[in-house]
Amino acid sequence: MEVLGSHLLLELKNCNSELLNDLSYIRKAMIETAQDVGATIVGESFHHFSPQGVTGILAIAESHISIHTWPEYGYAAADIFSCGTSFRPMEAATKLAEALECRTPEIREIQRGLAVHEAVGR
Amino acid sequence: MEVLGSHLLLELKNCNSELLNDLSYIRKAMIETAQDVGATIVGESFHHFSPQGVTGILAIAESHISIHTWPEYGYAAADIFSCGTSFRPMEAATKLAEALECRTPEIREIQRGLAVHEAVGR
Repeated sequence: MEVLGSHLLLELKNCNSELLNDLSYIRKAMIETAQDVGATIVGESFHHFSPQGVTGILAIAESHISIHTWPEYGYAAADIFSCGTSFRPMEAATKLAEALECRTPEIREIQRGLAVHEAVGR
Repeated sequence: MEVLGSHLLLELKNCNSELLNDLSYIRKAMIETAQDVGATIVGESFHHFSPQGVTGILAIAESHISIHTWPEYGYAAADIFSCGTSFRPMEAATKLAEALECRTPEIREIQRGLAVHEAVGR
């Protein structure tokens, strides 16, 4: 099986904690990021937790963009899962990190649907 | 920084292709899986693509469960991202694989929010 998708895992540490707790800001940042890098949004789900923290998920034609924030740690875990070539996932990752004023973003890329997984097993 | 979340990446190969294209079946399977393993659903987004394929995302209080299907390959990429201890992610992974009649599930676990990432860098 070929590579079907590129999955970026973003560890966003040392972000602006206030922004991490602002649902409307995060929603706007995610939608703008998606649009800027050529994604087509097909659905969304955003939720603010008590006492703090936001979960935001955009379903996009190319797969999904998600974020979970822990304002108390200045930390967010974001995922950018994309398939196809019309979308620029690394640019999306950079934009999202910048929007949250993240000083130490770490990005890992994992390929999904690879033939090599056959050998790795469970 | 401690571990904040466990992220399971499921490579579901050799599934039942018909089920992979059935949005209502997938939605039901995901919701039942989430409920069975103690997750609290806070939002959802499901989409059927033309000519085939389904994207399904459940936002849960513990983070998210997502799936993207490629019926033409009998393949689905699913993610189970959970934080907290009230949720049983590996049980959710097994249930989801079974629901899709997956014959060769592969599951990778990635910990999110780990101190060790500080040394890995970007």
